[in-house]
Amino acid sequence: MPGSYGLFTGIIKASQMAFSSLDSELLGPLFATDAMRAVFSDQAWLAAMLEVEGALARAQARLGIVPAGLADALARVEPASLDLRALGDATAISGVPTIPFVQSVQKQIPRDLESSFHKGATTQDIMDTALVLHMRKGLALITADLAAIIAAFSTLAQMHRTTPCVGRTYGQHAAPVTFGYKVAVWGSGLVDVADQLPSLRSRVLTTSLGGPVGTLASLGANGPTVAAAFAEELSLTAAPIAWHTRRSRMVEAGVWLAMLIGTLAKVATDVISMASTELGEVAEPEMPGRGGSSSMPHKRNPVGATVILAAQAAAKGHVITLLDAMPAAHERPAGAWHGEWHALPQIFGLTSGALQEGRRLAEGLVVNVERMQVNLDATGGLIFADAAAARLAQHLGREAAHAQIEEAARRSRAKGLSLLQTLVEDPTVDNNIATAFDIAPAVNAAAGWVDLAVADMRRALAQLSAP
Amino acid sequence: MPGSYGLFTGIIKASQMAFSSLDSELLGPLFATDAMRAVFSDQAWLAAMLEVEGALARAQARLGIVPAGLADALARVEPASLDLRALGDATAISGVPTIPFVQSVQKQIPRDLESSFHKGATTQDIMDTALVLHMRKGLALITADLAAIIAAFSTLAQMHRTTPCVGRTYGQHAAPVTFGYKVAVWGSGLVDVADQLPSLRSRVLTTSLGGPVGTLASLGANGPTVAAAFAEELSLTAAPIAWHTRRSRMVEAGVWLAMLIGTLAKVATDVISMASTELGEVAEPEMPGRGGSSSMPHKRNPVGATVILAAQAAAKGHVITLLDAMPAAHERPAGAWHGEWHALPQIFGLTSGALQEGRRLAEGLVVNVERMQVNLDATGGLIFADAAAARLAQHLGREAAHAQIEEAARRSRAKGLSLLQTLVEDPTVDNNIATAFDIAPAVNAAAGWVDLAVADMRRALAQLSAP
Amino acid sequence: MPGSYGLFTGIIKASQMAFSSLDSELLGPLFATDAMRAVFSDQAWLAAMLEVEGALARAQARLGIVPAGLADALARVEPASLDLRALGDATAISGVPTIPFVQSVQKQIPRDLESSFHKGATTQDIMDTALVLHMRKGLALITADLAAIIAAFSTLAQMHRTTPCVGRTYGQHAAPVTFGYKVAVWGSGLVDVADQLPSLRSRVLTTSLGGPVGTLASLGANGPTVAAAFAEELSLTAAPIAWHTRRSRMVEAGVWLAMLIGTLAKVATDVISMASTELGEVAEPEMPGRGGSSSMPHKRNPVGATVILAAQAAAKGHVITLLDAMPAAHERPAGAWHGEWHALPQIFGLTSGALQEGRRLAEGLVVNVERMQVNLDATGGLIFADAAAARLAQHLGREAAHAQIEEAARRSRAKGLSLLQTLVEDPTVDNNIATAFDIAPAVNAAAGWVDLAVADMRRALAQLSAP
Amino acid sequence: MPGSYGLFTGIIKASQMAFSSLDSELLGPLFATDAMRAVFSDQAWLAAMLEVEGALARAQARLGIVPAGLADALARVEPASLDLRALGDATAISGVPTIPFVQSVQKQIPRDLESSFHKGATTQDIMDTALVLHMRKGLALITADLAAIIAAFSTLAQMHRTTPCVGRTYGQHAAPVTFGYKVAVWGSGLVDVADQLPSLRSRVLTTSLGGPVGTLASLGANGPTVAAAFAEELSLTAAPIAWHTRRSRMVEAGVWLAMLIGTLAKVATDVISMASTELGEVAEPEMPGRGGSSSMPHKRNPVGATVILAAQAAAKGHVITLLDAMPAAHERPAGAWHGEWHALPQIFGLTSGALQEGRRLAEGLVVNVERMQVNLDATGGLIFADAAAARLAQHLGREAAHAQIEEAARRSRAKGLSLLQTLVEDPTVDNNIATAFDIAPAVNAAAGWVDLAVADMRRALAQLSAP
Repeated sequence: MPGSYGLFTGIIKASQMAFSSLDSELLGPLFATDAMRAVFSDQAWLAAMLEVEGALARAQARLGIVPAGLADALARVEPASLDLRALGDATAISGVPTIPFVQSVQKQIPRDLESSFHKGATTQDIMDTALVLHMRKGLALITADLAAIIAAFSTLAQMHRTTPCVGRTYGQHAAPVTFGYKVAVWGSGLVDVADQLPSLRSRVLTTSLGGPVGTLASLGANGPTVAAAFAEELSLTAAPIAWHTRRSRMVEAGVWLAMLIGTLAKVATDVISMASTELGEVAEPEMPGRGGSSSMPHKRNPVGATVILAAQAAAKGHVITLLDAMPAAHERPAGAWHGEWHALPQIFGLTSGALQEGRRLAEGLVVNVERMQVNLDATGGLIFADAAAARLAQHLGREAAHAQIEEAARRSRAKGLSLLQTLVEDPTVDNNIATAFDIAPAVNAAAGWVDLAVADMRRALAQLSAP
Repeated sequence: MPGSYGLFTGIIKASQMAFSSLDSELLGPLFATDAMRAVFSDQAWLAAMLEVEGALARAQARLGIVPAGLADALARVEPASLDLRALGDATAISGVPTIPFVQSVQKQIPRDLESSFHKGATTQDIMDTALVLHMRKGLALITADLAAIIAAFSTLAQMHRTTPCVGRTYGQHAAPVTFGYKVAVWGSGLVDVADQLPSLRSRVLTTSLGGPVGTLASLGANGPTVAAAFAEELSLTAAPIAWHTRRSRMVEAGVWLAMLIGTLAKVATDVISMASTELGEVAEPEMPGRGGSSSMPHKRNPVGATVILAAQAAAKGHVITLLDAMPAAHERPAGAWHGEWHALPQIFGLTSGALQEGRRLAEGLVVNVERMQVNLDATGGLIFADAAAARLAQHLGREAAHAQIEEAARRSRAKGLSLLQTLVEDPTVDNNIATAFDIAPAVNAAAGWVDLAVADMRRALAQLSAP
Repeated sequence: MPGSYGLFTGIIKASQMAFSSLDSELLGPLFATDAMRAVFSDQAWLAAMLEVEGALARAQARLGIVPAGLADALARVEPASLDLRALGDATAISGVPTIPFVQSVQKQIPRDLESSFHKGATTQDIMDTALVLHMRKGLALITADLAAIIAAFSTLAQMHRTTPCVGRTYGQHAAPVTFGYKVAVWGSGLVDVADQLPSLRSRVLTTSLGGPVGTLASLGANGPTVAAAFAEELSLTAAPIAWHTRRSRMVEAGVWLAMLIGTLAKVATDVISMASTELGEVAEPEMPGRGGSSSMPHKRNPVGATVILAAQAAAKGHVITLLDAMPAAHERPAGAWHGEWHALPQIFGLTSGALQEGRRLAEGLVVNVERMQVNLDATGGLIFADAAAARLAQHLGREAAHAQIEEAARRSRAKGLSLLQTLVEDPTVDNNIATAFDIAPAVNAAAGWVDLAVADMRRALAQLSAP
Repeated sequence: MPGSYGLFTGIIKASQMAFSSLDSELLGPLFATDAMRAVFSDQAWLAAMLEVEGALARAQARLGIVPAGLADALARVEPASLDLRALGDATAISGVPTIPFVQSVQKQIPRDLESSFHKGATTQDIMDTALVLHMRKGLALITADLAAIIAAFSTLAQMHRTTPCVGRTYGQHAAPVTFGYKVAVWGSGLVDVADQLPSLRSRVLTTSLGGPVGTLASLGANGPTVAAAFAEELSLTAAPIAWHTRRSRMVEAGVWLAMLIGTLAKVATDVISMASTELGEVAEPEMPGRGGSSSMPHKRNPVGATVILAAQAAAKGHVITLLDAMPAAHERPAGAWHGEWHALPQIFGLTSGALQEGRRLAEGLVVNVERMQVNLDATGGLIFADAAAARLAQHLGREAAHAQIEEAARRSRAKGLSLLQTLVEDPTVDNNIATAFDIAPAVNAAAGWVDLAVADMRRALAQLSAP
């Protein structure tokens, strides 16, 4: 009841809002940032809807369609002055928040401006354009974090460009790389994502203004002109025709975020493995109180990586929901569009949390160079088996060499000898096989790729920071 | 900052919680019920975690492992007395809410009980068991709505067991059915889902109590006995071995909800089509203010069906997230389990909203019997083409009959005649072809299935209401 | 057993290959084209793998690393000469087809070239680069169909730029548009997708050459040079660092196809609705034998639209599988990469079938202009309610006008009068309200957007056909 | 062209069928079994459709509706006599294979039986019932493998019920368990899935017989009787009302398979980790040629686990496609049903491959007990930190004990001492702390759970093998 204790019920209700762990007071701080939370808050929705109506009023005033006073009147409406609870209750009836929103705002502007307010527009225009404004802000937050992570990985990759490290495939030791090489792959994965941004922005940062069926018919011949002026007011582009039922741009945006999270999830997967007790090659940055266990005092759990992997699991699901919105019937569908509301803001939320943890990892990862060397040495030279086989292949052919090394590896394991010892004992093997066990070529090869990747990261960073 | 204006920031923060439309004050009332919101609220989480710790204390006290006073002390801790905001901030560091929760509760119980509190348990035990308590409540709410909808469809199907209605396949008129038959199919779809509930409940309503690695080793030989007593205290079953990393039960629960929503989505799909301007056979129940448009005063939008379809799009995504949690590494995974938190409560929320609208539809659908007849008549008897072909096939064989009716249908459309007129004019066609255009056999056949389905709905209802 | 009856077992086995409906002889022709089938056939895989090995040989020969004769020897190996069945059986053991493939090819080239063959490369290099070659061919097929559909929609939109048609939202009549406007929205949806292609191609059409752990260490300092020459040989770009575990490009490609199918699914959804018996505004192009029913001779089922919607349901699933491949552990994952094989070729197959049907629809849709007019007239002018309300709002304000039209609509329905008649009878309503019932402004507004959209389609077509 | 070289084109075409890796000759043997391939082959489809038509003929003959000779005539039609290629081409036109199938079969039975053949049935009845026959066979294959795996895990768990092994959470050493305990969790996960089977079978193994719109109207009052007799002929149950558009049973079946694969994926995840070079606790069973690398002779890649994880990634996607089929419009949808064909057979195929590898793992896993002990010892007693903290907590309280052990662990790592040494040196610590470092209690606790889980596995096995 919107009576005198409205404030109080507001508090109670708020604390009951926790279907999404992003929105829970208990779990939300773990999974999303306050900055992104502010972008998609209910208050921000109201503010953005007001901004959109204001831009429409200014655009139409420029063309003499509505009085100049309308925009001023709208500018005076405070988002906080609108009764969110009452709007919510009315939305539960009407099916869209715009209807009660327009009625509510109407009460705060002069009566004679009523027929000019919201002129020509439809619910979806206001909601979609407000969402685009949110997305612009959200993408700006994301771009900043993304750039910071690429920059940090670029530095870390250079720092460890020649730090020897085991390369692993299928969970097994394969051949040596450098830790810088691994980091360069991480950074380049983010570059792949960053490089998609300009193309994405060109389609996503677009106003929606079509009126009931997309044709802006109530504005007569002025439709396209008003649409262009409206876009200009918001520094967005205008679409050549209504996108009420062309939803690929929402999928594009959602998938881009999911790919960004997925790229961080590759980093997280590697970190969890490398931070495992047996590998011990890295640890998440120390944060007082982080990573402990309620029962196990010695643990240092990879909390950041955990948050990132959980975000990936959730983001994939939201992608499905966005794809579901594509077959939007006729000029506005019953259900497909509403489904987007369940998905898009949450992917932004998940991304904010994953980036926050990704940035912590990138900027503060604890690297244990000694353990990397211990692990390289642990298999008695088996990690050079590929190099040794290549050496033998020059005389024996690839398959025979492969088979001989396979056999030598088996003998080494059985006798507890190093692979080199086993090979040296074998009279059929050339003495200079020892050169295959020199790590320098592997390190140098890895370092060369680090340089190429770092240069590419710098290119991408320059592009990300371009206006 | 937890200072004097803590209350105030609490309010501000709450209103910013809106990544999920379920949790938004603006959109939430449209998409989820307050009853389900209360089940999964942050306060409910704290209450359930306290209930779980209390049950553990009682179970251990019964076995003389902890003092009897512990349970009493825990019973005195008010969920609201715990500082949700501080817990959230600490969770963002620790990665799980149980660690700060245990520390916080500890402060409210006598110091000498500390080593007895949370004894043997691990974070996941508390969280998973609390979640199971939520699920039990959520399933009870859902079962009540499900039963009400089946009952309403059962009544509606009987009421219209002989109301003629077009049967449609691929969007085309196919052959006559009755409206009661369509409703019986809707109700039977829900019976399919209801019938899965006992099997589901037998696996899902199970405590988790395994300690750090699932073996309850710190309780020595008492582990299984404590686990059994703990389950008894909560009226849940105990698992034969820890399910920390056996997560199929969470998938089962989530998918069951998704199938329930999907079954309602079939109803919604039919309603949207039948409520379309051209068909006009049904309308959603009248609710003052519902279904209007911000721009089109004559509209009666199917808001309930819209909510249901949006829920289905979102629920499918959450199913993916739950399936992702299955390959949980070793004794507790980094990420997979946390991902469940993003999905499971939301499917419950979505289900509550979909059921609310489904129930409104089932109990209040406006049926326009006249329009059903108008639509049956609209094609000049083409809807009896199958029956006519069957008649001709007795002499001509199926394919020739099929071809002859196809040809007659073409001529009818071309000349604007009814199919019967066209056939009667054809000297090769037997005169008693007119009997094929009698709707009675189609109606009777449909009514017979309604009776069978209604009997089955009653069986399912009796089972649903069994203790 | 590869004995004398090998041919025979080959046939039997082939006819048993039907887990995917795309690969079934019974269902495959409905769902995918032969042209795309040829791109992803087993034979094509072998041919592409040989092409990749050949390019590697030429690249290394240019740099003096392997003898020039190797490329010639490889060029002489016929894909059909490799025993597919034996390779399959060996793949089931080895886990990747490259191992038996290399052994098999080895047998056909001079023994002294053995240590030069496949030099430096790893399984994933060959498979991924072969896949990229397939994707290039697949994208070319797709681009041709996509351009044809945009061109056809562009023509159809212009042809019907002023053909009046009902605009529908939430399944309800909303306000008039033109049929050309609807088609322009369809075409513009495809333009959104087409516009993403250049950015996509720049990342996807890239070779993979990294060797066991991505560093090409066995080539010493030559790695990057060989990689560049290899890419040149295949007219692809080279990556700055191995993308063995950076899989966003595969997601990008798969999602792009899913968005393309989703855009066609919007068209299909509209076509199914407009082709329904009650609307009757369009029909799928006539194809002898298509659209009939095994039981109902009068049916004309929208088979093309059915194929497209089924493709969308399947494509969404494959997107999930591709997203799953992103968190690829270390230098090669156990499982994530193999999962891609289950998804990517199938999305190409689904796209080929959806485009085939989309093109048939775009080029041959049967348009019933008369029925569009009948439907416009069916509600007695209610479709002009928005326009009438706008007229009244000039004096009454928007909300009062909205309410008055809502009331008049109710009275019209009750009395069986047209909305105009009801309004004219109302003394409070200005006489010139009749002008609101003129369809011309709606048609003109729609036509204006058609022109803008068609111009944009032409721009996109020019870009698609650019080299 | 079905001319003289038809056989030849058949071969060519077959080798081009490879959109799905399950159907590829190159990759298929890795991912699916021949036994399951036979169940879902094109030939099997034709055979099952004939079986369904035969059962319908027998059921109707029993009731005197069709001549007894029809069933005999149908029994004489060989699946292989039907021209699959021609049927496929016709399906591409008609949209469903049943139409050409019925025409084709008709040609092989006496003309006077034509009007009795396929009487009352519709396309979907034949296809869905044939699919159910496939599913029954598929489930039988799966049940056998599932039982074998549970049995093998039961044996393996008992064998290693007291074999000490590190318990790991978040990738970190947590506390000791036994290897048998880990295996018991694996087996119990499969029991969770097995326990769902009876409930699933009761809904899934059901005939479909409803005719064009589900009412079997052309059979007059005989509909339900014929439906019951038809079900009896096939030893399936009959549904109370048509399930043409109630598709939850297909979702249930698909999700059950996905959960089965997901449960195996948990095993695979653990195996990959435990088989990693650093852990070395298990290895996949030796198979000549398996697990090698094209470039690295020393590798022993976990191929079986790789196949399982890839299956899980793909199965999740197919679940989405099945969920998409639920909102099936009216009496038969355009698209939703066809989408199922893309998903359901493939999940069966994926399951067969995952079970094949799962069974190999369960029956042949190589266990390295020594390495388990080495890993337990590797952290100098830190794995007993939880036990030590519990000991200290009796005097200090849980939090202080936790803090003290955390600090001791830090000192141990710094000084290279064991945790016990560090604690013993601490004068504040009671001497009997050493008892916390006894592994026996952890082993005994784990063994107790093994016994409970094994008993439960036996219960489940008895139920699985029940008729």
